Amino acid sequence: QDAASGRTLAGQCRTCHGLDGIAQIPIAPNLAGESQIYLEKQLKAFRSGERENEMMSVVAKNLTDEQISDLSAWYASIKITATMPE
Amino acid sequence: QDAASGRTLAGQCRTCHGLDGIAQIPIAPNLAGESQIYLEKQLKAFRSGERENEMMSVVAKNLTDEQISDLSAWYASIKITATMPE
Repeated sequence: QDAASGRTLAGQCRTCHGLDGIAQIPIAPNLAGESQIYLEKQLKAFRSGERENEMMSVVAKNLTDEQISDLSAWYASIKITATMPE
Repeated sequence: QDAASGRTLAGQCRTCHGLDGIAQIPIAPNLAGESQIYLEKQLKAFRSGERENEMMSVVAKNLTDEQISDLSAWYASIKITATMPE
């Protein structure tokens, strides 16, 4: 897992998910602070076709295991804080 | 969409996802601040079987459209901030 490499690879994710993992469009999820294991699992599910999405099924198809690991490490490395409404 | 009702319903989500949407276990995603449209889509995908997960496929099966809307409103109402590593 190489978060620095993942940050570079995230250039292809940022239009929708943001470089900092805060989504730029409502149909895309925030990825900031999601766990390595969760992110890897979802990318591999999109790659295999187990999970389907118009955009992600295309994007994930060409990712190697190493790229998936690195991308996941980048987004997992971002710290998030949550504030509930009053 | 009734976030207050969703907060109550989230009692069944909190063991894994946290009441504040910060996941308690690595295999579950943070939900805090995800959009209404994204959360509703995922819950409906789990309910229909389009998306599958051991836990979520069971939990979502019994949710009504209104409950899905309310739960989504709760988690969407939580504000998050992200901090990238140096």
